Amino acid sequence: MAAMEQPPLARVIAALPPNVPFVGPETLERRTGVPFVARLGANESAFGPSPLAVAAIAAAAADGWMYGDPEAFALRTALAAHHGIDRANIVCGVGIDGVLGTVVRLFVEPGTPVVTSLGGYPTFAFHVRAAGGVLHQVPYRDDREDLTALAERAHAERARVVYVANPDNPMGTWWTGTELTAFRAALPADTLLCLDEAYADTAPPEAIPALDVTDPGVLRFRTFSKAYGLAGLRVGYALGHAETIAAGDRVRDHFGVGRVAQAAALAALEDQTHLADCVRQIAEGRERITQIARANGLAPITSAANFVTVDLGRDGPFAKAVLDELGRRGIFLRMPGVAPLDRCIRFGVGLPAELDVLERELPAVIAAT
Amino acid sequence: MAAMEQPPLARVIAALPPNVPFVGPETLERRTGVPFVARLGANESAFGPSPLAVAAIAAAAADGWMYGDPEAFALRTALAAHHGIDRANIVCGVGIDGVLGTVVRLFVEPGTPVVTSLGGYPTFAFHVRAAGGVLHQVPYRDDREDLTALAERAHAERARVVYVANPDNPMGTWWTGTELTAFRAALPADTLLCLDEAYADTAPPEAIPALDVTDPGVLRFRTFSKAYGLAGLRVGYALGHAETIAAGDRVRDHFGVGRVAQAAALAALEDQTHLADCVRQIAEGRERITQIARANGLAPITSAANFVTVDLGRDGPFAKAVLDELGRRGIFLRMPGVAPLDRCIRFGVGLPAELDVLERELPAVIAAT
Repeated sequence: MAAMEQPPLARVIAALPPNVPFVGPETLERRTGVPFVARLGANESAFGPSPLAVAAIAAAAADGWMYGDPEAFALRTALAAHHGIDRANIVCGVGIDGVLGTVVRLFVEPGTPVVTSLGGYPTFAFHVRAAGGVLHQVPYRDDREDLTALAERAHAERARVVYVANPDNPMGTWWTGTELTAFRAALPADTLLCLDEAYADTAPPEAIPALDVTDPGVLRFRTFSKAYGLAGLRVGYALGHAETIAAGDRVRDHFGVGRVAQAAALAALEDQTHLADCVRQIAEGRERITQIARANGLAPITSAANFVTVDLGRDGPFAKAVLDELGRRGIFLRMPGVAPLDRCIRFGVGLPAELDVLERELPAVIAAT
Repeated sequence: MAAMEQPPLARVIAALPPNVPFVGPETLERRTGVPFVARLGANESAFGPSPLAVAAIAAAAADGWMYGDPEAFALRTALAAHHGIDRANIVCGVGIDGVLGTVVRLFVEPGTPVVTSLGGYPTFAFHVRAAGGVLHQVPYRDDREDLTALAERAHAERARVVYVANPDNPMGTWWTGTELTAFRAALPADTLLCLDEAYADTAPPEAIPALDVTDPGVLRFRTFSKAYGLAGLRVGYALGHAETIAAGDRVRDHFGVGRVAQAAALAALEDQTHLADCVRQIAEGRERITQIARANGLAPITSAANFVTVDLGRDGPFAKAVLDELGRRGIFLRMPGVAPLDRCIRFGVGLPAELDVLERELPAVIAAT
């Protein structure tokens, strides 16, 4: 084939730095040649999916030759009943990452102002940059997303979209539903609030605002990847006004949520007993990480998520050195990328045996760093 | 929550018609209340995935709490060996649909000229419209994509991207590898050729151009959704120049291909015996559909895909009436949406029992329409 020029990228894309939101633990293992013995860095649920979901996956496997229902009707019906809303208020996608990508493409074009927190969930910013949006990033205050400053910035920049994660990743902190409702009211009337509730299932009930799907300016994001233990199946969903949800049909990958994934999520949703058991174990794990951190003279930040972010009390390079050394000792972790959050390391709740490894290794690593 | 305005959509999106590329058979079943007895409309493989893939899905289910490797290293390693190229020449995504979406976002911005065929695979056009690209659609000639006219149009419009499916969907026709290589050479030097080879596995070898991953202006698309029988797992991939492949990292959903899907695809790839058996059964099914069509006085179009598109010899409304009546009799089918292709119905290869239903119902439907 004769022609040999690289076709020009879209201008917005050409201007992007080569960038990936996260390096996977498998990549790190390939670099070092040493497998991790504790996988605590990706906010997964080591307690695994419901046995009903495991069985549903196995049962659906032979039907894997069929595309999934592009309307995910059965799953959305079950979710609608679960949340007490209508199917039309729900759209499923390829994890929250996939749904966020769809929403960004719906509302963000080159030059669109978007407000988020400096150091917040990087995949949202990744999508906004790829769409040519202009990110306005508000610093955290006291390790929480600063709702007051976010609302002010949204007005100042005439933001089309504001993104907040509650509970927050990477800090684990949260606002109450009452505070979030006031925040939404303080935003410009034509601003879309993207409220990422990936960690809703592990949060105290008061952290979750009442579901109001009559407001076309709010989309809320939930997932089966965290407490439900199905990160590897890729099912997330958005809740919102039917009109806002329906707009996504213009751009979403209609067949993106496969048949096996839909079956898995449906079975997982039906096993609320397993979910409750995992939530309990996650709470115990948070307490254990808190104790380990304190025993090492570190300051754990109270978390409503499936991890505890711990303030190491020094600067980013110190935290990075500790993280790297823990990695060499077989513990996969991640940390915030931006100061002053980067004085912290995020410790995911793992199995007790994994936290044993952390407890055993941490003192020597802290002492030697 | 106080604000009640619908936030404004991006201008490109606001200008789109409400549109979905395909209505799923499940949606049709819900509308009529009657389940289909023959599922011949989505170009799936009723012969199912490899038993090794079924076992791999079941085995991976309990590990479904872990995100998939965002680099799909093991799968790409196996694909590289299979195709005799380097891992760096391959990127996996959420089906070809997902990979096409990524590629369109990389190269297409508002106003970008894109050339494709009028009546060709609608999901590509769906992605281009959502990115604001300007579609220039070249009519088919003799039920084949018109390579000469496509190349001429690419020059005339200074096309950034040209899309061709070979074998073609919805017609099943194809060009030889030699002809496609000449076509690529005839395109502008800075045009990207997207060569969709979803049906490569069922095509004669001479339909497939030699793999040349030194040309940064060609991307080829393959999938596990067709002959491999894993449509419901969502794994497709692109083959091309390492630089073009790497550019996708700026926008792709890095975690979109889940752990279970990767395990399924890897196992399916390793069972080339099953693939060969399915390809044989698909060829037999094409022959059977051909015979059924001829027995009804219809003109089957010779196909290299897992379906046979049949010329009903009259106009679009007639074909649509036949399709609808076959649907009422429990046979799920689709047909091309644009004249003159819409004189045809596309009959997917199904199990022999499904083709029995078609053979039984078709004469009465034709007679009564």
